[in-house]
Amino acid sequence: MRRAVVVVLALGAVLAAAPSAHAAVRDYWVAAVDVDWNMVPNGRDAIEDMMYDASQTVFPTVVYRRYTKSWKKPLRNSPDQDLIPGPLIHARVGDKLRIHFKNLDTAFNRPHSMHFHGVEYKPSSDGAYLPGFSGRDAEVKPGQTWTYKLTAGKDSAGAWPYHDHGPAMDESIDGGMFGMLSILGRHEQAPDREFEVVFAPMGKNFMTIDGRAFVGNTPVFRAKVGELVQWDVMAMGSDFHTFHVHGHRWVTSEGPRDTQTIGPAETYRIRWREDAPGTWLYHCHVEDHMMHGMIGIYRVTK
Amino acid sequence: MRRAVVVVLALGAVLAAAPSAHAAVRDYWVAAVDVDWNMVPNGRDAIEDMMYDASQTVFPTVVYRRYTKSWKKPLRNSPDQDLIPGPLIHARVGDKLRIHFKNLDTAFNRPHSMHFHGVEYKPSSDGAYLPGFSGRDAEVKPGQTWTYKLTAGKDSAGAWPYHDHGPAMDESIDGGMFGMLSILGRHEQAPDREFEVVFAPMGKNFMTIDGRAFVGNTPVFRAKVGELVQWDVMAMGSDFHTFHVHGHRWVTSEGPRDTQTIGPAETYRIRWREDAPGTWLYHCHVEDHMMHGMIGIYRVTK
Amino acid sequence: MRRAVVVVLALGAVLAAAPSAHAAVRDYWVAAVDVDWNMVPNGRDAIEDMMYDASQTVFPTVVYRRYTKSWKKPLRNSPDQDLIPGPLIHARVGDKLRIHFKNLDTAFNRPHSMHFHGVEYKPSSDGAYLPGFSGRDAEVKPGQTWTYKLTAGKDSAGAWPYHDHGPAMDESIDGGMFGMLSILGRHEQAPDREFEVVFAPMGKNFMTIDGRAFVGNTPVFRAKVGELVQWDVMAMGSDFHTFHVHGHRWVTSEGPRDTQTIGPAETYRIRWREDAPGTWLYHCHVEDHMMHGMIGIYRVTK
Repeated sequence: MRRAVVVVLALGAVLAAAPSAHAAVRDYWVAAVDVDWNMVPNGRDAIEDMMYDASQTVFPTVVYRRYTKSWKKPLRNSPDQDLIPGPLIHARVGDKLRIHFKNLDTAFNRPHSMHFHGVEYKPSSDGAYLPGFSGRDAEVKPGQTWTYKLTAGKDSAGAWPYHDHGPAMDESIDGGMFGMLSILGRHEQAPDREFEVVFAPMGKNFMTIDGRAFVGNTPVFRAKVGELVQWDVMAMGSDFHTFHVHGHRWVTSEGPRDTQTIGPAETYRIRWREDAPGTWLYHCHVEDHMMHGMIGIYRVTK
Repeated sequence: MRRAVVVVLALGAVLAAAPSAHAAVRDYWVAAVDVDWNMVPNGRDAIEDMMYDASQTVFPTVVYRRYTKSWKKPLRNSPDQDLIPGPLIHARVGDKLRIHFKNLDTAFNRPHSMHFHGVEYKPSSDGAYLPGFSGRDAEVKPGQTWTYKLTAGKDSAGAWPYHDHGPAMDESIDGGMFGMLSILGRHEQAPDREFEVVFAPMGKNFMTIDGRAFVGNTPVFRAKVGELVQWDVMAMGSDFHTFHVHGHRWVTSEGPRDTQTIGPAETYRIRWREDAPGTWLYHCHVEDHMMHGMIGIYRVTK
Repeated sequence: MRRAVVVVLALGAVLAAAPSAHAAVRDYWVAAVDVDWNMVPNGRDAIEDMMYDASQTVFPTVVYRRYTKSWKKPLRNSPDQDLIPGPLIHARVGDKLRIHFKNLDTAFNRPHSMHFHGVEYKPSSDGAYLPGFSGRDAEVKPGQTWTYKLTAGKDSAGAWPYHDHGPAMDESIDGGMFGMLSILGRHEQAPDREFEVVFAPMGKNFMTIDGRAFVGNTPVFRAKVGELVQWDVMAMGSDFHTFHVHGHRWVTSEGPRDTQTIGPAETYRIRWREDAPGTWLYHCHVEDHMMHGMIGIYRVTK
């Protein structure tokens, strides 16, 4: 069952990435849903050899979940992630996006919204709560819906954040209510592999990647030699991070790098042609953050 | 009265920005003056719907203030700002600047100085206190004056900080004793609108933009569709920030961005041709900072 | 005796920097050694005029030290630094490096390793501890040795960190167990002066540059007008910093800068042709960090 969903989504990703002669209108169906989220499903920090009890690692929260049309059936948010981060939204420069959002928060009964970076939109699709100015887009109440109308403009290529910007923004972001847009240039080559890495503090003591802490809980990303891999890296919350991958470098306008500072709501799209087989670590290089969970495994096979 | 001053300064800004065939010598008259500064003049955090009493938001401090020649009459520091940040100092590459500084601090009776980034100068205009090495430029005592002699060199185009670097640097910066230089290339187009955004913590609980906290207290910046707008963004103190403007992007050598990390004394000059009418938010995207005041309104009309 | 070592190393630096027609194999001999390290040898913060007692500033630690072949005789780590940071490892793109590491830690008896950024290597030279995956390269026990085999690839030009990534990584980095690689392009001009600046917190109350706090303890860097100077700047630990040098600017793809954010394990190689005689300050511009020691002197003579 879960495997079937993955296949459907993988096909979806291929279609989303295929260059097309004409700009498309892309519909995404997203809901805010309740979940009891476990930051450390295997109960273990393998590197420090420490055990955690579920009472320390599970908390009730609200997250974005992808659905089929008209919110009929839930879907995984991306091949590698189930619920955190939210649905990976694909587009190409020139496309229009309609993000249909429904608030199904019954746990906290809070109004929610979606605020998107990197794309063009009118104020009525901004989703940011500002008393006296903002409208229904910024306060979608439980049971209600809103459609955000976005355009991937000529300066929209890249990876970008989206997140709740309603009256409860603070609690929502702390609880994982964020995701990413991944926008390709009109005729840009799509990557063979796309990995989402979201650095965010969670709970009182955990520093998470995609809502999970410690090797074995954070995503295991996989690629083969020769593939074009793309890392969509983002931070949310109040902390700054440095993204590092072992055994790899990427080229920037300032020269090659293998470590990059990322502050809250900043995003970096990092690419390379894979040529280094092995089992590698990717992690935040802030020492405290790495020790509190921001580290994962990247496996490259021949 | 205040209106008259604004008109004079607006004219001054236009003159400062006009390209000229020959390099100019520009004189600025600046004093360190006492003020009881209110971080939250309207006493309110409109987004969180919280009230603040003046006893929580007013503190005595010393700031830089612009004056007419020979410190005869005080002026506003810029069209948008009265006292924090200090006078916006304009020049073009090739110009010489003479900054005439007078210490009128009678509140704390401390020595003060001005230390400038981005420009060329001799050590006697450095303004940085170093026992055994530095001179009078680094310790201008109350009642005394010093003239800092600067050159806008070929690699001086951009926005740059200045700040107190005397023996009381720490307390001075915490109290708002900082400002910006805005230097255009020799023949570079001047912007139609220029907005100064300085992120700095103040008091124990406030995170300020230009010394003010919360929407309605921070500057309301205004522009029209078609105008070339320029944001001079800076951080001072000990915190890192991420500058974000809703509904807009700007192009960098690494591709388009709408969020930028800024550390203490870093500056970014960000430009775009305005094309998005609406009432937008600009803010630091560090969640804690936004919640403690680092957010403001940007209004674009047709 | 110490002078002789400096001369030898200075010659070594010149040789390392000389362009060569053919790629070289470079051997470095490094050991982890015990030391009682004094962060404030002169016992004084000259700017704040405060005294410190050795009981506050000395602590036992383990650091990387350079040796002659087969660890016969200890050497200084670089002309400016004795023990922190570790040996400055020079190479050119195309070279191979063999870093022969011996663990002589008798103070804590911990396993140690070396993990290198910026270069190509197989997983057996990664040096990162990962239970179930990593090998002896990641846990070199006291008395044991390991040779890390690295290649300076086509995207390896620049300054890069190395550091302990073994089971005690956290304690090791806090204690100064880190250093830098400095890799030139195949035919790139070598600088006339190379300065290493490593920002790292140490002990409970000190913010250090190269393991030292406060002017007079941190390195005094020296150059002459006309020389090509290169700053290799790095941060280690959990803090972010902003590197600033008075009276100088450098050019980036985003325009000129004089202040640069640097997060943990990030590195910047900054160059300029010296043209500003004087006694200048270099420092981290994070106010708290500067006040707790991250500041030094740069002397330029004609």
